[in-house]
Amino acid sequence: MSNIYDEALDYHKNLKGKLEVKLKSDLQDAHELSLAYSPGVAEPCRKIADDKEKVYDYTWKQNSVAVVSDGTAVLGLGDIGPEAALPVMEGKAILFKKFGNIDAVPICLNTKDPKEIISIVKAIAPTFGGVNLEDISAPRCVEIERTLKEELDIPVFHDDQHGTAIVVTAALINSLKVVGKKKEDITVVVSGVGAAGSSIIKMLKTLGVKEIYAFNSKGILLREDSEKYNFLSKEICEITNSSNKRITMQEAFKEADVFVGVSAPNIVTKEMVQSMKKDPIVFALANPEPEISYTLGKEAGARIMGTGRSDYPNQINNLLAFPGLFRGALDVRATKITEEMKFAAAYGLASYIPDEELSEEHILPSALDEKVAEVIAKAVSSKARELGVNRI
Amino acid sequence: MSNIYDEALDYHKNLKGKLEVKLKSDLQDAHELSLAYSPGVAEPCRKIADDKEKVYDYTWKQNSVAVVSDGTAVLGLGDIGPEAALPVMEGKAILFKKFGNIDAVPICLNTKDPKEIISIVKAIAPTFGGVNLEDISAPRCVEIERTLKEELDIPVFHDDQHGTAIVVTAALINSLKVVGKKKEDITVVVSGVGAAGSSIIKMLKTLGVKEIYAFNSKGILLREDSEKYNFLSKEICEITNSSNKRITMQEAFKEADVFVGVSAPNIVTKEMVQSMKKDPIVFALANPEPEISYTLGKEAGARIMGTGRSDYPNQINNLLAFPGLFRGALDVRATKITEEMKFAAAYGLASYIPDEELSEEHILPSALDEKVAEVIAKAVSSKARELGVNRI
Repeated sequence: MSNIYDEALDYHKNLKGKLEVKLKSDLQDAHELSLAYSPGVAEPCRKIADDKEKVYDYTWKQNSVAVVSDGTAVLGLGDIGPEAALPVMEGKAILFKKFGNIDAVPICLNTKDPKEIISIVKAIAPTFGGVNLEDISAPRCVEIERTLKEELDIPVFHDDQHGTAIVVTAALINSLKVVGKKKEDITVVVSGVGAAGSSIIKMLKTLGVKEIYAFNSKGILLREDSEKYNFLSKEICEITNSSNKRITMQEAFKEADVFVGVSAPNIVTKEMVQSMKKDPIVFALANPEPEISYTLGKEAGARIMGTGRSDYPNQINNLLAFPGLFRGALDVRATKITEEMKFAAAYGLASYIPDEELSEEHILPSALDEKVAEVIAKAVSSKARELGVNRI
Repeated sequence: MSNIYDEALDYHKNLKGKLEVKLKSDLQDAHELSLAYSPGVAEPCRKIADDKEKVYDYTWKQNSVAVVSDGTAVLGLGDIGPEAALPVMEGKAILFKKFGNIDAVPICLNTKDPKEIISIVKAIAPTFGGVNLEDISAPRCVEIERTLKEELDIPVFHDDQHGTAIVVTAALINSLKVVGKKKEDITVVVSGVGAAGSSIIKMLKTLGVKEIYAFNSKGILLREDSEKYNFLSKEICEITNSSNKRITMQEAFKEADVFVGVSAPNIVTKEMVQSMKKDPIVFALANPEPEISYTLGKEAGARIMGTGRSDYPNQINNLLAFPGLFRGALDVRATKITEEMKFAAAYGLASYIPDEELSEEHILPSALDEKVAEVIAKAVSSKARELGVNRI
């Protein structure tokens, strides 16, 4: 890995920032300047002053997203602060452009106070058509996102929660087709109940999965222990472990059709996978070191293995979801991203691979496939219209 | 004017926003993705986490500026709100790019509370190499800018105050050469003590102008009336009207070598200009309708007339200052923009026209001359180095 890191450092140093601002029209003469700026610009200003919604017609709001982070949970690096988070947020912004043709701007915040983050995002919202929250630590991220969703009339989406959940849901939908199981019949073990884990659990529950066992680093979530939990784990223990069993992860694996790890490297052994129900499905998403490596998982008999890594089949990468999801939301100037729209994205993503092309090693398209976002966008925008959360 | 307004509306509607985000490198394959994003991006993050100043080496902070407005004093339109201000802030952003090659991002704020604006700008500052405050009403803008200048380690500049002041100072320096007067000998009447007027007065005072009479809409500023004034007018009355005369603007004109108007249309008559000292210099900058029209001013005997309009000679436009000023500040990763740097910009701008090319109708370069910013940038960055407010 040391080579890629040295190379990445040079790459960043030479580029001097991964994104830039570009004029859509070149301001070629004084006349164009008088249209784009003074005095002509006064006219769109007046129109918007009369009717705020017209801001979508005359400005970049129709295509802009703020990528907001406080730098508290960046990659696997933890709380490294807003400056150190900026390379990641710039990276996110260029992915928005490359895969969704969306004009995204990194906004790294020098505060960790959820109330202040909420009020800042509310304050800058007029400029943007959507807000992508990124790398904000759990459970604060959930509180921040919920409040903003309620109080703003543009889509607010925390990708670490729901981006991963959408892609896992799509991966599971297709994996179940491959192994011939029904969602209503399966038991899923989820390791990790932070941002991603809790959103995955909620989506899988809504999808109709029969039973989910949720584990944090101390063990299984149990309703009788809920006093010890933060509000998020409290919510999760209400919808998991229906018969309230105090079991270890090893024991839970014996009942499991599916394992989803969003936790820590190498916590799953070959023996645990071997103990799973027939045709194990293992999504080991800790990055860059999964809960169990692709190779070891396959050796242990996993019928389908997915990881976060691009160097093995079945990469489960949120890049497959957020560009299309926001593209669809912006296309209809959506007021929000609902649960139904997230599911439309998941089903849209799953459907991208025709049934006859599905296989153990091909449950999702490549993260670099630039046509995926279009398919998801269509699914999301028509769902938004159906729900009436569209402006156009 | 109605045609330009209709055309401007179409222009904005068709462009769908005047700026967009662009990738500096195209993310052409999985390898580049692994450098720009996960896993490679972790390395610049780690370097910056170790030393915050390295954010300049690895991110767009080295070239980015936030254009921040609360929409309270937009063009001549007043308090039209953040959405309606967005077309102007986008316009400003494209001017930054076109003339300064600076990546500027509009940030329109849904709050008018100076304390909140200050805390928001402080919070978003890690992302940007500078902050350009824009179209924030006086005297709040002064309080906001002062606090931010003290508390941030990047340049903060309110263009409505100082951009105009720099260009007026440059215009005056060159005009005095044309008419053969010395700054120490002249009396200046300034109409308007808002954002622009108060900064102009301070710069002209620092420049060494002998006497300044400052007028607001109610009359001349007088120290004995200072209880009635806001903090900004209080400051201005301390450095103007040295013998504390209670005179009308008509009376003041009789003593004046120079008039600078940043106030209201058509408040200066032909007779007032005729009553001025020999070789009157008149900068009538109310926009789009000046305090006295170019034609009328010339008819009344003004030796030099300047207005904000592009359709007459001597356009006094802040576009001549801010791109070069910020370019120079960013080039040395300045921690602030000082008074001395503003004067370096003014002298740099004035010097752009060689003495032998100066004339009554040519005291400043065209606002569209793309080479001006370079000259100003050099003057500003070497002044910053001299003062030690540079990082590189």
